[in-house]
Amino acid sequence: METNAILEGMLRRKSIREFTAEDPTQETVDAIVRAGQQAPFAAQLGSVLLKRNREANPFHAPLLFTLCVDLHRMERIMEARGWERAMCDLSALLLGIQDAAYMAQNMVQAAESVGLGSCFLGATPYYADRIVEAYGLPPRVFPLVQLAMGYPAEDPPARPRYPIDFALFEDRYPAFDRASIEGAMDVMDAGYLAQDYYRSRNAMIRLEEGREEEFTYDSYSWTEHISRKLGQWGKDPNELLRALRACGFDLGAEAKANQPE
Amino acid sequence: METNAILEGMLRRKSIREFTAEDPTQETVDAIVRAGQQAPFAAQLGSVLLKRNREANPFHAPLLFTLCVDLHRMERIMEARGWERAMCDLSALLLGIQDAAYMAQNMVQAAESVGLGSCFLGATPYYADRIVEAYGLPPRVFPLVQLAMGYPAEDPPARPRYPIDFALFEDRYPAFDRASIEGAMDVMDAGYLAQDYYRSRNAMIRLEEGREEEFTYDSYSWTEHISRKLGQWGKDPNELLRALRACGFDLGAEAKANQPE
Repeated sequence: METNAILEGMLRRKSIREFTAEDPTQETVDAIVRAGQQAPFAAQLGSVLLKRNREANPFHAPLLFTLCVDLHRMERIMEARGWERAMCDLSALLLGIQDAAYMAQNMVQAAESVGLGSCFLGATPYYADRIVEAYGLPPRVFPLVQLAMGYPAEDPPARPRYPIDFALFEDRYPAFDRASIEGAMDVMDAGYLAQDYYRSRNAMIRLEEGREEEFTYDSYSWTEHISRKLGQWGKDPNELLRALRACGFDLGAEAKANQPE
Repeated sequence: METNAILEGMLRRKSIREFTAEDPTQETVDAIVRAGQQAPFAAQLGSVLLKRNREANPFHAPLLFTLCVDLHRMERIMEARGWERAMCDLSALLLGIQDAAYMAQNMVQAAESVGLGSCFLGATPYYADRIVEAYGLPPRVFPLVQLAMGYPAEDPPARPRYPIDFALFEDRYPAFDRASIEGAMDVMDAGYLAQDYYRSRNAMIRLEEGREEEFTYDSYSWTEHISRKLGQWGKDPNELLRALRACGFDLGAEAKANQPE
């Protein structure tokens, strides 16, 4: 496979959750955010919040970034231009989430290039209200994801991924047969077991009442873990609808008004 | 500002819409997609479709990738594990859009590192039905964004971005005063005008009936362009709700059922 230092760096990349005492300089922070800003897509609907409070930051990271979908700033510009937003919230969020996400991923890669490690915090939208409060966010700013960052004090291996023929489909989406499903599951499960990933972090997800535990850390791995997440978590859309409403995006009302009877 | 070859590459990056006749090899395609797969986030809910038909691809690009949110594949794995999905569609989409977006941005950067240019096609979700048809997508696969890619036959400058103090906010989200709004607008507008961006592409967005055109390509620039998009486009949430429904995600019904009276 074709390779170079950048590709090798991407393939080596893994989440870092332990950080040294060294504080990244303002120059480094600026370089990372500038690289983030240059990510493609069009509308610059992503904003970045920063907190340097190690005591309060997840994993005591020296840097905690919060990537937000920011319609507030855009609407101030539109106002200065004599325009009112007409785009619905669903469309604006779909654009803005992408703006913020492309920016975030550029920041991850930029950080790696200057020796910093990072970890995404995917549950961010579920505690959006606390972020609104902490940073004094105006309405129309939605915290999408947080990124803890600092100099790595651990060096874990890169984590397994699906075989490429389970992720890249040319011309037609395949009808997965049992062998290809099980083959991909084996790659993931054997890969995480070989790294002792869940045991070392004591990360087994508890079963809801009524289900009996049949796994130990000798057998518990990625496909069971991810199945428990999607099989037990995030059932109630109200959690996110409420979080969005608290940030001034009324997706629920919009969908309701436009739902066929 | 701190710098290195990777950061410099990110700051130089711009969308490419003209491609040479050279076809990227399978090895190159695989290297790009593998780098995409290694992007962080947890659930591997992103899938990549590929079409190499230059005649049909946008900008006659040799490669057209479609990044999808793929719950179908995940639900097949859960089924093999004896699980049913319980997570609501809104939560699953929020996770899956991020998985697909982080993957896409890694692919953009991986491509740059081997000399390929690319351009995102942000309107993808609005013609999801055509992609479902073209690739035979099963339900629960949602085409998020397309990425046209190939060897560049043009070398435009990088495009302007907001000043960093208009994008990075430490501790508190600022109360923008008029001067900071107008300063950022000037940076964007003067920057695009200096590149003759809209004139060279004849890209002025037409005004809806009732609004009188007061701009020429001597004055029309980024803030007016983006205001016209958000002020005129994507008004009807039904467009996206329908597209999602066609892909087996019933966000509308879910929101309606959970909307406070």
